[in-house]
Amino acid sequence: MADREATRTETLMEAVRTKIASRALAPGDRLPSVRRFAETMAVSPSTVVDAYDRLAAEGVIRARRGSGFYVTGINLPPLVLAERGAPRARDVDPFWVSRQSLDADPSVPKPGCGWLPADWMPNAALRRGLRQLARGDDAVLSDYGSTAGSLALRRLLLGRFADEGITATTDQIMLTNSGTQAVDLICRLLLRPGDTVLVDDPCYFNFRALLRAHQLKIVGVPYTPAGPDMTAFEQAILAERPRLYLTNSALHNPTGASLSPQTAHRVLSLAAAHDMTIIEDEIFADFEPAPSPRLAVLDGLHRVIRIGSFSKTLSASVRCGYVAARADWIEGLIDLQVATSFGGPSRVTTELIAGVLAGGSYRKHMDDIRQRLVRARKSVAAKLAPLGIVPWIMPRGGFYLWCRLPDGQDSTEIARRCMEEDVILAPGNVFSVSQSAAAFMRFNVAQLGGERVLAVLRAAMASRVD
Amino acid sequence: MADREATRTETLMEAVRTKIASRALAPGDRLPSVRRFAETMAVSPSTVVDAYDRLAAEGVIRARRGSGFYVTGINLPPLVLAERGAPRARDVDPFWVSRQSLDADPSVPKPGCGWLPADWMPNAALRRGLRQLARGDDAVLSDYGSTAGSLALRRLLLGRFADEGITATTDQIMLTNSGTQAVDLICRLLLRPGDTVLVDDPCYFNFRALLRAHQLKIVGVPYTPAGPDMTAFEQAILAERPRLYLTNSALHNPTGASLSPQTAHRVLSLAAAHDMTIIEDEIFADFEPAPSPRLAVLDGLHRVIRIGSFSKTLSASVRCGYVAARADWIEGLIDLQVATSFGGPSRVTTELIAGVLAGGSYRKHMDDIRQRLVRARKSVAAKLAPLGIVPWIMPRGGFYLWCRLPDGQDSTEIARRCMEEDVILAPGNVFSVSQSAAAFMRFNVAQLGGERVLAVLRAAMASRVD
Repeated sequence: MADREATRTETLMEAVRTKIASRALAPGDRLPSVRRFAETMAVSPSTVVDAYDRLAAEGVIRARRGSGFYVTGINLPPLVLAERGAPRARDVDPFWVSRQSLDADPSVPKPGCGWLPADWMPNAALRRGLRQLARGDDAVLSDYGSTAGSLALRRLLLGRFADEGITATTDQIMLTNSGTQAVDLICRLLLRPGDTVLVDDPCYFNFRALLRAHQLKIVGVPYTPAGPDMTAFEQAILAERPRLYLTNSALHNPTGASLSPQTAHRVLSLAAAHDMTIIEDEIFADFEPAPSPRLAVLDGLHRVIRIGSFSKTLSASVRCGYVAARADWIEGLIDLQVATSFGGPSRVTTELIAGVLAGGSYRKHMDDIRQRLVRARKSVAAKLAPLGIVPWIMPRGGFYLWCRLPDGQDSTEIARRCMEEDVILAPGNVFSVSQSAAAFMRFNVAQLGGERVLAVLRAAMASRVD
Repeated sequence: MADREATRTETLMEAVRTKIASRALAPGDRLPSVRRFAETMAVSPSTVVDAYDRLAAEGVIRARRGSGFYVTGINLPPLVLAERGAPRARDVDPFWVSRQSLDADPSVPKPGCGWLPADWMPNAALRRGLRQLARGDDAVLSDYGSTAGSLALRRLLLGRFADEGITATTDQIMLTNSGTQAVDLICRLLLRPGDTVLVDDPCYFNFRALLRAHQLKIVGVPYTPAGPDMTAFEQAILAERPRLYLTNSALHNPTGASLSPQTAHRVLSLAAAHDMTIIEDEIFADFEPAPSPRLAVLDGLHRVIRIGSFSKTLSASVRCGYVAARADWIEGLIDLQVATSFGGPSRVTTELIAGVLAGGSYRKHMDDIRQRLVRARKSVAAKLAPLGIVPWIMPRGGFYLWCRLPDGQDSTEIARRCMEEDVILAPGNVFSVSQSAAAFMRFNVAQLGGERVLAVLRAAMASRVD
């Protein structure tokens, strides 16, 4: 009897769920009254009450005092799964890797993604910071921050710049919500749709997405192990008259290469001769064992704008980027950030980051990470070798290996096949303006996962149709 | 003679500067030869040489040996949004209030600012949330969030929408870094430079700054206590064919008015007839004692895009906004957010907000705030009355009083004088596209401060030069 009662309750619940799923009952709709539903379904009112209460506990419906039960719209079963359409159906474009890897289930291996696993990050320091904030001022918890962002964090950054030989003042630096937003604001300040921008080929795929969003003309310059190919770079400047060169010189993404001193000097000389501004993204700088030549340092922040963030080294959840540049540009960028975001990163964020950076543990954390990555780069290169996958160079630091696949393999096809097996890769052409990197793949050595990934990769390469 | 010569030189210089600013002459372009330009402008060649030399000295153009003058681009006026220089020297433009109030010393009274004092906010709940995060998962502390933002927080919002009668699914909502960023992304998705946008006159000053940053044409429609003036609204649509109407209907900023049901229906009918999209910013909705008519509810998120944030009710430090709209627009907005910010708000932020919203204390907090604000509105109105400052309407909720000053008083001048005494006000014309609100001032009743502010205000009004 109790069992039969339970089954009846289940049947009623399922009937309601089906109506909601089919949209016969929409969010906000009132459910039938207990009496009417009991009659319709030929059950006792108490069974209906039981079913409604249990659906309410699940959050599918909710009671309103004196007026019955209503569909909440929460937990709509099929539509939740269909969130934003089937990602797998999308083109392998510059958004492909971002959206696949950001939206993947945490259990899915992501050798294509651009960050370290959560358990590599300085979580103990972050936890300490959160507890400290919980004891801190009301104003930090609930007020807006200043328009340029936390003075303490800006000073910390200026101190680090001074160690490199860059003399800059607090009006030459501002905080942003991310490194990407930093580039975005600069494009808004200095460029107009149709302007030409030079990038490296290959380059970070989201540079391509961002420049496209600004309707800019993107011109790629082949990248060599010492930086951009200078013959091609000069030709591109003469032929295309670019306003801007967007690059990351310390452990270039995706190749892991760094600028040679000669290339750095030559890039700056050409930029000066042709009035070109440079954005230098140094997001991977802290992964270098020792600093490589940097455009912003040689130039002293005149025509070079330095940007960076803490997403790779400290936390990608607590997001914060920065821009260092000429003071008049910073002034314009701050206005733009007010207009388009009403200010910069959260005070909770900047306090947390400043706390971790100022604490003694950050340097130790980065030392550990660098050593761990030396081992991981070697180990992953050794695992890929039997598959005929060979690093283009062995980088001095960082977590990327830019690898050439065996002859005839197409990395886009392999990435598609591996996606079917829930392994997310970063195929070469998402990084390439000229679409000339089909034979390359970027591997994140900290995210390779176990043997299954290698097996899936091997199978994907074997299933090639000649 | 020398004077006339100087004027001619100036005219030529200005002509070149205008061509550069408008991009008729792009960086790298060669200027007309001295002889040709002299002919075109009907001046002597020596005047052109003089003008070119002076522009070269300014760095706007440069001579190349034997080949003429070229635009450098180095001093190309960047997208100028506001006058630069020391904050006090700045024009009282749409940025004035934002930057003054965001960057002011905490001790400075800010009756012009747009938020509640820190000690009015639910800080105990925020502290609990931080302690909980400090005990939580590594991934929340250091991983990127999903591209649409926390599913838990989106579901909470959808539940609230369902209570109002809006049927929406999780693919129709995304989280952003702020309400402002939400509007910014929508402008990027749907508009192009030169498009026309309708706003209320007066409207939130940062709408003006934001639309200017997008190089949009801004058309104001006079606002009445029942919403936009419908005769003017229809005329503006017919004459200007705007692509978008940007408004906030629940407790309109700065007036505190709300839409009447008839106005709401009429706005939507006109929008449908002329294929106009609407952004409805409901950032002040939770301050209403009961919901007023809402465009997004009547329309069901077809041509109306709902945006909002938690900065006014929960925390302006822990920043997070949202957009609810058609699923295909959300899909496009997410791509844009990835391209320009590499994702949405921090996971730490969204976990914290979801925690506070889901906890039982938020409803109680808002009940308290609403009651406190009823008293504050009355009390501030009573304090302003002896100065002859009278609210345009007494709003049903919120923290703004939009007040008319005594005859002959200019609110911009008064704001300037009060700034000298470290009191930050929000003069009417920063809100007015037509610059017709010189007789108005917006007061934040929770930020009026003590008797000193009233004394400073009285003195500023008394020092008027007739």
